[in-house]
Amino acid sequence: MKYLFGVDLGGTNTKIGLLSADGNILLNKSIKTNSEMGYDDCFNRIAEVIKKMNIEKKIDENDILGVGIGIPGPVLHQEVVSFLANFPWKKNLNVAKILGEKTGYRVKVDNDVNVITLGEIWQGSAKGYSNVIGMALGTGIGGGIVVDGKLVGGFQGAGGEIGHMTIIPNGKLCGCGKKGCFEAYVSATGIEREAESRLTVNKNNKLWDIISKKEGQKVEAKDVFDAAKLGDSFSLDIVDYITEYIAYGLSILLHVTNPEVVVIGGGVALAGDILFDGITKKIKKYSLLACIDDLQILPAKLGEKAGIIGAAALVVNR
Amino acid sequence: MKYLFGVDLGGTNTKIGLLSADGNILLNKSIKTNSEMGYDDCFNRIAEVIKKMNIEKKIDENDILGVGIGIPGPVLHQEVVSFLANFPWKKNLNVAKILGEKTGYRVKVDNDVNVITLGEIWQGSAKGYSNVIGMALGTGIGGGIVVDGKLVGGFQGAGGEIGHMTIIPNGKLCGCGKKGCFEAYVSATGIEREAESRLTVNKNNKLWDIISKKEGQKVEAKDVFDAAKLGDSFSLDIVDYITEYIAYGLSILLHVTNPEVVVIGGGVALAGDILFDGITKKIKKYSLLACIDDLQILPAKLGEKAGIIGAAALVVNR
Repeated sequence: MKYLFGVDLGGTNTKIGLLSADGNILLNKSIKTNSEMGYDDCFNRIAEVIKKMNIEKKIDENDILGVGIGIPGPVLHQEVVSFLANFPWKKNLNVAKILGEKTGYRVKVDNDVNVITLGEIWQGSAKGYSNVIGMALGTGIGGGIVVDGKLVGGFQGAGGEIGHMTIIPNGKLCGCGKKGCFEAYVSATGIEREAESRLTVNKNNKLWDIISKKEGQKVEAKDVFDAAKLGDSFSLDIVDYITEYIAYGLSILLHVTNPEVVVIGGGVALAGDILFDGITKKIKKYSLLACIDDLQILPAKLGEKAGIIGAAALVVNR
Repeated sequence: MKYLFGVDLGGTNTKIGLLSADGNILLNKSIKTNSEMGYDDCFNRIAEVIKKMNIEKKIDENDILGVGIGIPGPVLHQEVVSFLANFPWKKNLNVAKILGEKTGYRVKVDNDVNVITLGEIWQGSAKGYSNVIGMALGTGIGGGIVVDGKLVGGFQGAGGEIGHMTIIPNGKLCGCGKKGCFEAYVSATGIEREAESRLTVNKNNKLWDIISKKEGQKVEAKDVFDAAKLGDSFSLDIVDYITEYIAYGLSILLHVTNPEVVVIGGGVALAGDILFDGITKKIKKYSLLACIDDLQILPAKLGEKAGIIGAAALVVNR
């Protein structure tokens, strides 16, 4: 039996999993990332967990196929991390080499959303497909573009940086400093900004009823969907706005790589049918028939495990 | 010495070239496509020209590597042509098989703009690069997306259909029936529509001076650039509009596949520096640094020969 490791390096926590070669998680553990203690310390602790898992499961070193690691930043050639936002680590860190030396195994590195997309192809919603776009709607928007079964990394590791493609010239200000980025509209943050802006002028709705009871009275994207599901017309109108922009942004991608499956994950995707039905209906308006014919737009399946499974998928991906 | 054939199937004319394996055109001939006489007749005549070229150059059949053919439509797996707009031919025509049987050689087929992009990588502006986007600004806008040296065909052969990605929701009506397509703004047709619309309310400019002397008084995209180069502020303003929209549309693509080179061809690209300088300057506003760092935006080099050389490139492309 062969084994692999998947590591999901996050800003706060890092998850490490031992998997069988057919994708089952046999062991998993979460440790603090503690990036402020430096990369050397962090990778030492990851290597230590890997070593302990090997011992616990009495695995022969020769049966380990390798380690995959997903990272929140652009990655070059599945080796070098260009930079990690909010990590006090140096630029152009060769994580494949560093973690490879510390573990003794072959290590492959990629961007976290790229990795999640691979995971969904290996074990999730897009299982068995080779032309796929993964989209993570969270605090921001991330993308994973897979063509003929391979991730599109790009020249500078910025392939799939779809959250920052401009979709409205001179549109809403984005956290990156540009205007009109996709994620300024329909990331969780974008949705919350829109809802807050609308609540300023209208408090006679179920969304406000929900928010006003919360400490801090701060909107979360989920509240908008919850109120909409109660039939609140104010919130249904925001959902209409959300599905319109997701359909529009997604349609652009369909004309570039013409995928057969789109997998949407991240917190916003948990809204379920109310979101997916709207997107599926509205995308037609923006798309050539050849781009939506037989296209499947599916919710991600792997949830919390997506990071670990996706990272491990890097090892088995050709 | 090895040889290959490149065929550029157009709506009116079809160009056929015999090339050396290192990309030199040794013979070339243009014949009428006469699509109304059916595909069988058309491919018979192409096969005949290929046979005659072999005889003329006394080539041993074993030294022919194959035939590449570029076609104005979406192509599946470099074999099957989904449909050809304005050709009275049946759908899903296996051109690789049909022309393969008629010539006796291995035949590879792809979309014309895809093929041109491959040609620019093989022998033109993008020589030696493997992450490239080709964009043809002609009557419409076509795109060729190359990732790791391979064309992105997509699930239904619609990879690179960038002319019909929506860039302005509910924007200008496009010939395809949708609204706000990229090519509704900055194809030659898009430019002419914009110029004509502006001329309706202002004839006190150098563009009108040029147009009014022509029979039919119809604007061509080239007239706009010519007047702008004379310093006409009315036309310079249209050029500003053109470069803004090209920069914007192109920036979207940079965030999807993050290419190292963009090659722009087609009639509109002949405008030269006035066009490329504007695009290069304006694209920054719409792009993440990682997407434009060291990016080269270059005019296509192969011109009239692009179709033949690109089609032949299909044969040598892995």
